[in-house]
Amino acid sequence: MTGRPVPPTPTALARLRDAPAGRHSAVARGVAEPGGPLVPLEVPRRAALPDDVVIDIDYCGLCHSDVHAARGEWGQRQLPLVPGHEIVGRVAAVGHGVRDFRVGDRIGVGCLVDSCRDCDACRGGEQQFCANGAVGTYGATDRRTGEYTQGGYSSTIVVNRGYVLRVPESLDPAAAAPLLCAGITTYSPLRHFGVAPGDAVGVVGLGGLGHMAVKIAKAMGATVTVFTTSEGKRGAARGLGADRVVVSRDEAAMGEVAESLHLILDTVAAPHELGPYFSALRRDGTLVQLGLPAEPMPPVDPRLLLRRRIRYTGSIIGGIPETQEMLDFCAEHGVVSDVEIVDADSLNEAWDRMVAGDVKYRFVLDNATLRASGPGEPTLANTPEDQS
Amino acid sequence: MTGRPVPPTPTALARLRDAPAGRHSAVARGVAEPGGPLVPLEVPRRAALPDDVVIDIDYCGLCHSDVHAARGEWGQRQLPLVPGHEIVGRVAAVGHGVRDFRVGDRIGVGCLVDSCRDCDACRGGEQQFCANGAVGTYGATDRRTGEYTQGGYSSTIVVNRGYVLRVPESLDPAAAAPLLCAGITTYSPLRHFGVAPGDAVGVVGLGGLGHMAVKIAKAMGATVTVFTTSEGKRGAARGLGADRVVVSRDEAAMGEVAESLHLILDTVAAPHELGPYFSALRRDGTLVQLGLPAEPMPPVDPRLLLRRRIRYTGSIIGGIPETQEMLDFCAEHGVVSDVEIVDADSLNEAWDRMVAGDVKYRFVLDNATLRASGPGEPTLANTPEDQS
Repeated sequence: MTGRPVPPTPTALARLRDAPAGRHSAVARGVAEPGGPLVPLEVPRRAALPDDVVIDIDYCGLCHSDVHAARGEWGQRQLPLVPGHEIVGRVAAVGHGVRDFRVGDRIGVGCLVDSCRDCDACRGGEQQFCANGAVGTYGATDRRTGEYTQGGYSSTIVVNRGYVLRVPESLDPAAAAPLLCAGITTYSPLRHFGVAPGDAVGVVGLGGLGHMAVKIAKAMGATVTVFTTSEGKRGAARGLGADRVVVSRDEAAMGEVAESLHLILDTVAAPHELGPYFSALRRDGTLVQLGLPAEPMPPVDPRLLLRRRIRYTGSIIGGIPETQEMLDFCAEHGVVSDVEIVDADSLNEAWDRMVAGDVKYRFVLDNATLRASGPGEPTLANTPEDQS
Repeated sequence: MTGRPVPPTPTALARLRDAPAGRHSAVARGVAEPGGPLVPLEVPRRAALPDDVVIDIDYCGLCHSDVHAARGEWGQRQLPLVPGHEIVGRVAAVGHGVRDFRVGDRIGVGCLVDSCRDCDACRGGEQQFCANGAVGTYGATDRRTGEYTQGGYSSTIVVNRGYVLRVPESLDPAAAAPLLCAGITTYSPLRHFGVAPGDAVGVVGLGGLGHMAVKIAKAMGATVTVFTTSEGKRGAARGLGADRVVVSRDEAAMGEVAESLHLILDTVAAPHELGPYFSALRRDGTLVQLGLPAEPMPPVDPRLLLRRRIRYTGSIIGGIPETQEMLDFCAEHGVVSDVEIVDADSLNEAWDRMVAGDVKYRFVLDNATLRASGPGEPTLANTPEDQS
């Protein structure tokens, strides 16, 4: 489903006004032991600092990187760990220095909750490239408070106002949640590399990132070619708006698209040959890798780059101003993710299905279900603050 | 030496006026048998077509690709083959349709003598990317005349006026010859990727391409860092104008240049790790590969591209308008190649020294020595025309 807008009800607003602005515990799901499943947890949330926004979370998207991080596949993280960086909720309270957000506002939080604010990247609004290391929404140490960050599989979160996005009320909040990661990850390179109406864009892979890439590229006026290994995805790609679908193992079909594309977004996170995609690019075309395989990629043949001055690059999420621009763009063009909403007790099953590629195209947690009783006793997450 | 300008003498002009405008044989050196040395040859040159320029060649640079081509290392070519695509000479005669070149004009020919003139690349003046295949100065079939092209290790050459460059009289003709390949190969990516005064440019390798990259980047106002595997090249790099020299095996020195460069021109034609150079680039920096190793390069780690949106690309020579722009730029800034002039009978030894990297930085053939008697009897090159 892609859903409909959900305006705030008087009851919801009343509940928000009762929400804690002081230090409190959020109910959450996270991984408590290496290799363990997601289990009920309580996580401490700080009292609002002057520039903080206290957020009552309504929905949180499930991103493949949540699994990688919680399972230590990208380096071991401190446990317990509450994942989640595709957060949509409403403002429950604000610090006394916050003037631009009010209780009840529909807002979102993506992959970053802080950065140095002082390097070239931060000053240029590209906090994702912070030279001193941006602070991830979960599994990182907040350089200002010293807290270990815990993400959006949680009832509340407290975030500095500079890292809070406005989510237009016209967007369905559950279907908008994946925009905060999958949306900006595909929007940013499309904008940065200058996709214009009429340009030919390729999208490799049709998962959470790929389906957003198709929708956003189409909304920008591009002609979109989807590359997939699976004949069975042809109809789905067409349904999302793709103008052409190429099964990448079909050499004749690959030959037909040779030298036709301006930009390719490659969303595949397993090692794969890039040569056929370089060949599909026009002179001066660009391949942007967005997926990050755990195993090495095959070597690149530099002849394919030299012959037509092809550019091979990569991109990660986007900065705060560009994320806001993306949300406004999606509202203007009616773009959201295709989502399947899951409750807290189905999170482990949803992770398994996500790893198996069995989702069209993004799971979103209904955070209201966190508050219902789950299996087992909640465990207090032992953040560094609690250990002292 | 970098030499001085050589104005045309009355004697030389008189000789030019005696040169053949009709069909004639040029004396040349070329490879006649697979794996064989360069030997004296005669090659037929067509009578000037209406748009042709007949060129009396004074100097021809020796490029590493001459060796690759003649030895069949980039695929077997038809023999006999006369290499040479860094040609400087004077106009000896013109076809009746040529108004913009006159007998005695100082002119040059680079790597291309024709292209389709109709594709996007040709219409945009980027004939090096001709979609239908540009015609190489040697070892290619001229699509208009059907002739097998024979290059600049030769007394004369006949070239369509659209592929003839003006070489400013203020440049030393021998030292200007390598600009036609090594010069444009480095100038083009510096211009295309927008190097501006004050930008930080890296140059990997200090051979024929590398030394031109240093000179041209300096003339553009860039700060230049040379990467070399050889401590012994430090002084030479400084002498060419490099602001900083880093021995690439010195990890501490490599660490000092981390994230400091806007653009790197990589001129090394042997397989090598690119990771250390990606790490030397700033956010949004570009590595341009110009050398083409015969063996595969090691795999690229995409994390290095994603983290700072690094671009990995390649470039080949340049188009005709850009080559003219480069020659005018070099005249304005007094940039030429450092060359060692060789005579015809020393060509084989010069090739061996070039392959061994024993040249600072480019050999240039004095074509006047072709006319002196060489060892062995001249052989008539059997072009397809002659076989008919």
